[in-house]
Parts: sequence; structure tokens; C-alpha cells
Amino acid sequence: SSRRVNGNGLDVWTLFNQLTQRYGAVNLGQGFMGFPAPQFVKEAGREAVMDESTTQYAPPRGKPELRNELAKRYSEAFGRTINPETEIVVTAGGNEGLLCTFAAFLNPGDEAILMEPAFDQYIMNLKMVEGVPKFVPLTVRAGVDPTQGVISADDWELNIDALRAQITPRTRIIVLNTPHNPVGKVFTREELEAVAAIAQEHNLVVLSDEVYDRLTYEGRPHLSIATLPGMWERTVVACSAGKAFGVTGWRIGWTVGAEALMTACLRAHTSYVFTVNSPMQVAIANAFKVAHATGFFERQRDEYLARRGRLTRALDAAGLSYTMPHGSYFVLVNAHNVRIPDGYQYPPEVADKDACYKMCYFFTREIGVTGIPPSEFYSTPNAHLAQNLIRFAFCKPDDVLDEVARRLQRVK
Amino acid sequence: SSRRVNGNGLDVWTLFNQLTQRYGAVNLGQGFMGFPAPQFVKEAGREAVMDESTTQYAPPRGKPELRNELAKRYSEAFGRTINPETEIVVTAGGNEGLLCTFAAFLNPGDEAILMEPAFDQYIMNLKMVEGVPKFVPLTVRAGVDPTQGVISADDWELNIDALRAQITPRTRIIVLNTPHNPVGKVFTREELEAVAAIAQEHNLVVLSDEVYDRLTYEGRPHLSIATLPGMWERTVVACSAGKAFGVTGWRIGWTVGAEALMTACLRAHTSYVFTVNSPMQVAIANAFKVAHATGFFERQRDEYLARRGRLTRALDAAGLSYTMPHGSYFVLVNAHNVRIPDGYQYPPEVADKDACYKMCYFFTREIGVTGIPPSEFYSTPNAHLAQNLIRFAFCKPDDVLDEVARRLQRVK
Ligand SMILES: CSCCC(=O)C(=O)O
Ligand SMILES: CSCCC(=O)C(=O)O
Repeated sequence: SSRRVNGNGLDVWTLFNQLTQRYGAVNLGQGFMGFPAPQFVKEAGREAVMDESTTQYAPPRGKPELRNELAKRYSEAFGRTINPETEIVVTAGGNEGLLCTFAAFLNPGDEAILMEPAFDQYIMNLKMVEGVPKFVPLTVRAGVDPTQGVISADDWELNIDALRAQITPRTRIIVLNTPHNPVGKVFTREELEAVAAIAQEHNLVVLSDEVYDRLTYEGRPHLSIATLPGMWERTVVACSAGKAFGVTGWRIGWTVGAEALMTACLRAHTSYVFTVNSPMQVAIANAFKVAHATGFFERQRDEYLARRGRLTRALDAAGLSYTMPHGSYFVLVNAHNVRIPDGYQYPPEVADKDACYKMCYFFTREIGVTGIPPSEFYSTPNAHLAQNLIRFAFCKPDDVLDEVARRLQRVK
Repeated sequence: SSRRVNGNGLDVWTLFNQLTQRYGAVNLGQGFMGFPAPQFVKEAGREAVMDESTTQYAPPRGKPELRNELAKRYSEAFGRTINPETEIVVTAGGNEGLLCTFAAFLNPGDEAILMEPAFDQYIMNLKMVEGVPKFVPLTVRAGVDPTQGVISADDWELNIDALRAQITPRTRIIVLNTPHNPVGKVFTREELEAVAAIAQEHNLVVLSDEVYDRLTYEGRPHLSIATLPGMWERTVVACSAGKAFGVTGWRIGWTVGAEALMTACLRAHTSYVFTVNSPMQVAIANAFKVAHATGFFERQRDEYLARRGRLTRALDAAGLSYTMPHGSYFVLVNAHNVRIPDGYQYPPEVADKDACYKMCYFFTREIGVTGIPPSEFYSTPNAHLAQNLIRFAFCKPDDVLDEVARRLQRVK
């Protein structure tokens, strides 16, 4: 097999899902919803699938129904008129939008800058296109101790000089992710401006992963870098219906950007998947209409805020340190005070992994709560920065979070 | 943008769909169904989408319901026990299975042998992974004149010495497509044995595109090269629910093969799309059950046979030469006797294209019937072999084919 697919066994998501099953743990690992999908979304799906106009190939760019709806929404959100014919491409989940952007703008050996911890699919996708990731760590602000109770996602800082230092003649893309997975950081206007200045200075594309755009708390506004002066022409925004509507199994996403950018993405997309599942596109178009008419997104945000509270109270009660997220549905726990007994045994899938991975395994097996090891979100030289970190997802129902609260008492 | 996405404007499918619209032509271009999808398939979709177990991420390998069903079907068809846990990967349409196979077994610069005319997505997908296509033409048997009425798809021969001559130290894959798009050829056991011998001798993977496996006529049995001795270990079979059930918009496909092959494909797949639309997977699993209980595939084949007759009678009446397909839903027409007037004007999208492309444009605009230019299925040096060829799809309802018959009278 090719270099591209070399490497160790299962992806981290599947592995921790399997460990969860094996040990009867509660699954706060992969970010799928543990509660039912909204009824109106499923009903939109049911209707669309019976509609004869969805049975055959959608255009590679996406069904007009969905592109028109998205154009309307993004025209409002971005304060500019988005052309549904040229400035949107519907993708097979948010992930395929990321992939297409890398494919469209990187020749083999070209570089993309990631802010680590960085969603592991960026790294996987870069490997598929022979792109080279360069890493800039987000780090906890000097003077803040992440092992002392609760810190804020705002305390995770981007060192803009470190970012600048990673730029080489082969740099083509900066990947931005706001709200950030797994830190929960919502980038401020000042931070985005600093990134935008570098992108413009070095003529880079910004791939802005905004899949958690509707999940921000404490009135932190989500701001897209695409809306900053001079940035529309160089930003690809990637989003996800799975996250927006709680249907991660539907695999509908989209990219938004200037025509020249979308033309390049479309060409990659047309080869990769040709077109996207047609009924679910129409369903999402209709779901957007209902959502806006009924205040769904505001209600959903409040529900997530309540879930965040339920999980963080459980962490407080267990004496675990963590980062309070201002966006996304993840909490980054720092389990510095959890001791793994000497001589503790790991199964082969875990035995050769780093300390962070092992801590997550220990939580799954012994505490009965699964998280994802953020070391997967770091480059190899920086994987030690993930030590003691565990990412918990709180897109789960109350009873699950309450059971987590009970189980976390075991860490004390 | 990157070299990968360089190139001329729209893909041929979208372009000819747009030309069809522009000129009010009848669309026998892209191979989508012009009749309603089977009610039981849509109903299976409707049920699956309401089922809470389909709202979240499927496993990257695919929903167990579908893998189990496929394992049962392929165990029967291939005469060996197929393991649903390790020997099947569900893909985002048949195309993504092709892509994953290329990605899994080709490093940049490695070669795959295509038999031209070759479905254009092979070439597009190879470009995405920096693989190099090498071409062996299928050619009309000596003594048969393709401009004299009707020839048989059997008359298109694979020169096995020419195939052998294309092998280099960088060859990794032979792509086989049976039933063949666009020739309609169903490869015989002897032909498959010859390909298998070469694959074994040179330790190659065979990517066997069998998306039209259920559409063969005149009792030509579809035979998978995977079932020949020694071939299971080196064959990836790619198939498509869109073709099998008449729902090309659903984008569900799968690859079948030995565990080591599927492990490599799965790794590519997990990066490219992560997982596939979950409700449609369950729907297809259930549709298979109904199809087998009710003889759907046999009935469907008879319907396609009748459609083939309707189209070929129209071609006969118009005095057009063609290849009679024994499989698939395409007819390759040889319009050698159609004269394009001197000084005929082409729009910019077509003006710089080859003669075959222009003939297809002429048919769309002046005859009012759209086909696809098979020059897109040839390498540049061999594009002249496509001169006068037009591919018509007959996956269309009777009234459409009858209108085609009327319009084709214009060529006389
Ligand atoms: C590739 S797993 C899905 C992504 C996600 O939801 C997560 O970060 O958990
Ligand atoms: C990539 S277009 C769809 C493939 C097909 O059905 C065709 O060959 O027409």
C-alpha cells in the first residue's frame, strides 16, 4: 500500500468508540450527539427522500435549493451579497471541505500552518495531498496555571510572532478554527486581524473551519475572518450541517468563499466525491427555513450552555482542572492530579502510545468515562504538551452527563 | 491553485447538462435515471431517515446493517465467505471507492493501466493522487467495420500483448471495468483470466469497477475477476447502489476485497470523507432485502433490455451505426455519416475541443439529443479514436426514448 495510508491501525475515533463498548464506559469521546436529532430535521429528511427531484445526481456544486438558502444566510451573516452560483460548494461533511481546500491550494510539499492542538483530520487530510503541516502551538498565557482549577479558553493564546516564524516560501495556507476544537476558544477580532495581516502580507489562503459557529457562549460573538477587510478574496470558510443541526450522520457540509477559490475547490470536490447526497441537501435547505422561523439555533445554544454547565459542575465536584470553553461542545480537562498505578497494563492498541493516550485509556477503563486524547491533535514533537489532557464532548443528554458526574467521583 | 485542480472549466457531465438545458435537448448524456426511483427504495429511505440510529456518524467502514447485507450477497455471488467486519468498506458512491483504491496503492508517480475508452473519473482520480495513467486501447476486431450498421460489444477487443507492453516497474494497478462504460462490453472468463495472469505475474492490484454488474443482457453472465483463482487477494471490487437501485443521487457505494486491501482503502476513505451518509446506508441494506424477496433485479434488467431495444431501434431507423451493448446502459454511436456544415459555429466552451466533442455539441444543439463525447474517455494522444463517437444513455423512460427516435430522424 502507499505511504499515504501507512500508519498505525484504527483512527482514534473508532478506537475510542470500540474501547467504550468493550469496557461499558460513558462516551464523551467522538463529538456526536447523544440525544435525538430535532424532529423537524428528520421530517425534512423524510420529505426530501420521497421527493423525486432528489433521487438523481445533484450538480457537483450542490443542489440549488441548499445553495440559495446558504447564500441568503451568509449574505446576512457576512454583510455582503453571496452568489449561490459561484461562491458556495456543498461538500460531503465539513471534512471534505477541508480536504478540498488543501487539495485545491497545495502542491505536494507545500505547507499549511496549523495551530495546535489542531483537529486531527487536518493532519490526515494534508497527508492525503502530500501537504506539509507546520505547527504553531496555542499556549496558556504566562501567569495562568492550567492545573489550578478552571481557566478560560481566552487564556489560550496565539503567539503571532511564532506564527510568523513558521512562514516559508512554501507556505500557502493558514488553518484557523473558531470556535476552536478542542480548546473552546472563540478568536477575537484582534486575533483575527493579526492572522489576516500575515495572510495578506504573504499572499496566503486562510482555511477557516467554523463548524461550531452557532455554539458560542457568554455572548462571545462568532466572527468569521472572511468578513475582515481584504479577506474575502483569500478565505475559504468550511461549515457543517451535522454540527448545526445535530445530524453528524448526514454528512452535509459546505464551503463559502470568493469565486476563484470556490472554482478551485469545486474541481477537487468533483473528483473526490463528484456530488453529495441529494435528498439530505434538500432536507438541510428546508431545515434552515424552519430553524430560522422558530428560533431553533438560539434554543439549541441555550441547551448546549446548560449541558456545558452540567459537565463542568461534574468536573468541579470531581476536583478536575479544565478549560472553560466559550464555544464548541468540548471541554479540555487537565487530569494532572490523577495517578495511574505503577505497572498498569495496556492493551496492544494503546501500549505504544503516549502518556495522554494512556490517560484517556485509563479514564475509559477505570473511571468509565471516555474522552479523546488531545495528543492526536498535536505534532509528534509537541505531543508532550498534551500530557494529562483529555477532551470531553458535552453534546450529550442530561442523564448521560449525570452518570458522568457519578463516575467522575472515582477520580477523587 | 494547485496543479491538481488546473485545467479547463466545467466537467463534461455538468457542461452537457447545461447545454441540454440551454438548447432544450433530450438528455441521454450523464447516466442518471429519467424515470422515478423504485417506490420501495424511497420508502426504505424514508424509514431510515426517521430512525434515530441513523442520525449520527456511521463507523468509517460503514453501517453494520449494510455491511452484513452486502457480505451475504457477495458470499453468494463470489462463492466464498465474505467477512463484513474486514472485507467491505462503504464508500460515498462508487467513485469514492475508485479514488480510495488509487490512493491506497499508488505513491505519486506510480502507474495504473486503464483500458480506453475509460470512464473519465479514473483519470480525474489518478490526477488527485498524482498517479500516472497508462492506456491500452480496446479496439474493434480486425475485419469488423464499425461504420457498417451494428457491431457487437464483443467486437471490442483487449489486446493482451499491448496491455503487457504497458507494464513498467512503477505499475501497481490494472483497472478493469465490466460491464464496460461506454462500450457495453461484458468481459469473458478468458479475457479475465488473461488479465489475472498478468496481475499475478507482476504482483499488481486489480481495481474492478463492476457498477453495472446487474445489467447484462443476452444471458451474458457478469463475472468478477475477484472470483478467479489467486485473484481474491489482489482485487478490489467497486460497486454502486446508485446504479443497482436507480438512485444516483444517494451516493452510496462500496468496495469488496481481502482484508489487507480493505484496510488500506479504509485508511484513505477515513481521511477523504471520514464516514458515509448514515440513513441512506441503512435504506440500501433494507432495499436489498426487498429486492431479493421480490425479484427486483431481474425485473429491472428486463426493463433495461426493453429500453435498449427502444433506443437501438431509433438508431436503426435513423441510419446510425453503433455498438450493441451486452451490459451497462450505454450505447456507443458512430456518427460517421453525420456531416457538420462547414463554418459551423461553436460556443467558447466547445470551440477549443476535439472533433468528437464538437459532434456531441452538434447533436445536442441541432438534433436535440445530448450524448457524452467519448473523447473524454481517451488519453490525449488517442482522442482521435473517439472521432464520430457519441455515448447515449438509455436509462430513460419510454416517452423520452420515443422523442429521441423522432429527433434522430433529423440526421437523415
Ligand atoms: C472525525 S470525528 C468527528 C469530529 C468531531 O465531531 C470531533 O472532533 O469529535
Ligand atoms: C461522473 S458522471 C456519472 C457516471 C455515469 O453515470 C456516467 O458514466 O454517465
